[in-house]
Amino acid sequence: MGSALAFPARENGHEVRLVGTHLDSEIIDCCRETGKHPKLPLPFPEGVEFHKVEEVSRALEGADLVIGGVSSFGVDWFGDVILPLIPEHVPVLSVTKGLMDLEDGTLITYPEVWKRKLEKAGKKLSLNAVGGPCTSYELVQHDQTEVAFCGDDPDVLMKLRDLMSTDYYHISLSTDVTGVESAVALKNGYALAVALTIGLNKAEFGEDSPLHYNSQAAVFGQAVREMKKLLDLQGAGSLDNLCVGAGDLYVTVYGGRTRLVGILLGKGYTIDEAREELNGVTLESLVVAERVARAVRKLAAAGRCDLGDFPLLMCVDGIISERKKCYIPWDSFRYTAL
Amino acid sequence: MGSALAFPARENGHEVRLVGTHLDSEIIDCCRETGKHPKLPLPFPEGVEFHKVEEVSRALEGADLVIGGVSSFGVDWFGDVILPLIPEHVPVLSVTKGLMDLEDGTLITYPEVWKRKLEKAGKKLSLNAVGGPCTSYELVQHDQTEVAFCGDDPDVLMKLRDLMSTDYYHISLSTDVTGVESAVALKNGYALAVALTIGLNKAEFGEDSPLHYNSQAAVFGQAVREMKKLLDLQGAGSLDNLCVGAGDLYVTVYGGRTRLVGILLGKGYTIDEAREELNGVTLESLVVAERVARAVRKLAAAGRCDLGDFPLLMCVDGIISERKKCYIPWDSFRYTAL
Repeated sequence: MGSALAFPARENGHEVRLVGTHLDSEIIDCCRETGKHPKLPLPFPEGVEFHKVEEVSRALEGADLVIGGVSSFGVDWFGDVILPLIPEHVPVLSVTKGLMDLEDGTLITYPEVWKRKLEKAGKKLSLNAVGGPCTSYELVQHDQTEVAFCGDDPDVLMKLRDLMSTDYYHISLSTDVTGVESAVALKNGYALAVALTIGLNKAEFGEDSPLHYNSQAAVFGQAVREMKKLLDLQGAGSLDNLCVGAGDLYVTVYGGRTRLVGILLGKGYTIDEAREELNGVTLESLVVAERVARAVRKLAAAGRCDLGDFPLLMCVDGIISERKKCYIPWDSFRYTAL
Repeated sequence: MGSALAFPARENGHEVRLVGTHLDSEIIDCCRETGKHPKLPLPFPEGVEFHKVEEVSRALEGADLVIGGVSSFGVDWFGDVILPLIPEHVPVLSVTKGLMDLEDGTLITYPEVWKRKLEKAGKKLSLNAVGGPCTSYELVQHDQTEVAFCGDDPDVLMKLRDLMSTDYYHISLSTDVTGVESAVALKNGYALAVALTIGLNKAEFGEDSPLHYNSQAAVFGQAVREMKKLLDLQGAGSLDNLCVGAGDLYVTVYGGRTRLVGILLGKGYTIDEAREELNGVTLESLVVAERVARAVRKLAAAGRCDLGDFPLLMCVDGIISERKKCYIPWDSFRYTAL
């Protein structure tokens, strides 16, 4: 996704320097040779520069903005190694979606993780983030896309929007960082849950049976219900936050890796078998789902929420963490009304 | 959908008498000859009886429950002709989804329409309804399905659930008839809106181009936002109502006729051309979308809501009512936060 944002940035006439992490050396070689990221469907716009991690300081020279695109697994590295190199007047915009859970069950955003690291080092940066439904391969194809930039400072956000918005990349702004970042992280476990029903139906009706949507939609509705309750726990249950989460849930159901693992689990694979089948694929959505479930269990134990409000999350967590076989608790998706 | 409910009802051991309207004579003939509804993928369970409309009084003899399954176009007929025949102790369960708009912009549910008709005739019936994501052809295939039965009397609702619930047909109960019925009606225009993006992408990227989901998800998120605001206008903005609407929206995007017309409109057809192309297909979702938009315009004119909160509904209404070419107002899908 970080690489994909080179498209709107460069198309807007900006100088773009793409820097790989220490794991991306071959990808940078490939980009230099072909002008195309191996996982993106189109070559970069003319003029994008490619750098290996050793060249990061040179790449940062004169930058107006740093876009961070590490996976959840690179969050600490980005905070410990890269952020200290960035001048204080240069804002950061991160596309990494996720949350980290603390000992007491508090879920904090990645910008908050980085802020705490920087505070220890006596440094301050403008840490902004992107939420909302956006797959990288569709963005670079100019599919119409609507995202939310969030950060503390409205003026910085407006500047970031000016830099990045195009006629296909539409940007809302929000100062509710916890809300936007929580919404788009929480959807991970729920996208997996919707995909479980696809796998269950393959097991029931045959591998090549037509897709059914009644069961997907039932889980989708319950997912929106649980996401709202989780957002409330984060103190961020606004309609805007719920909608960015619902849109992100929608795109993630169709978005590749989470769907793949959900289908395998629905077909009856254990989580270990599914991981083996998808050997080498980064399954960061599982990490986030597990953290959220762990946090919710702690909050429930402390009397701060009711586990009965989260049957779908508990189902997903049972499959991921306790290695249970897939089972959807349909009759617990009940209205509160009666 | 009315015919599809014969499946759980009969599978639960009930005597089921399926009665066609005056437009369904050939369908009833077909059911009698083949044991299968021509539009359903599987034959009825053994023992379902089929009746023409002339036999309705005989079919009603000794009934514990009457399930109504007319389309929106049959709502008045059902209220004027059929309801008067039903004994007062027999509850009615309607699957017809929709709303009717009054002169002042008030949107009323079909159970309310029927209640008003019955009041004039000095009659009282228990009028209940089904909302939630459920396509008939998937229900009869036993895809796991979650719906909501709504009505005024919890005891009646629990009785109806006992009659109808199976291990694949899961039923929540709600006494918020306006809420459930509004949520599942409001989704019509919005499902069309999501489908518009599919058509727009076919026009942009080619008829057989792969589906893109960024744009679908952007419209989906905005749809949930507008549905919540419409539910608030109905005095029914609870989370449960929003979730039944979101689930129903999800299934309707994939559910056939609304999707078909949305794709045609997105490809640049006018509404008249789309109707001609789909000659003979009942497009009741368009009727409901038009009524809701008409009501909202009146409420806005009366200062009771802000049209700026409903850019997607206005876009759909412009296409349907004012015969505009498809255009999605992306930059109006903005967060309220900034």
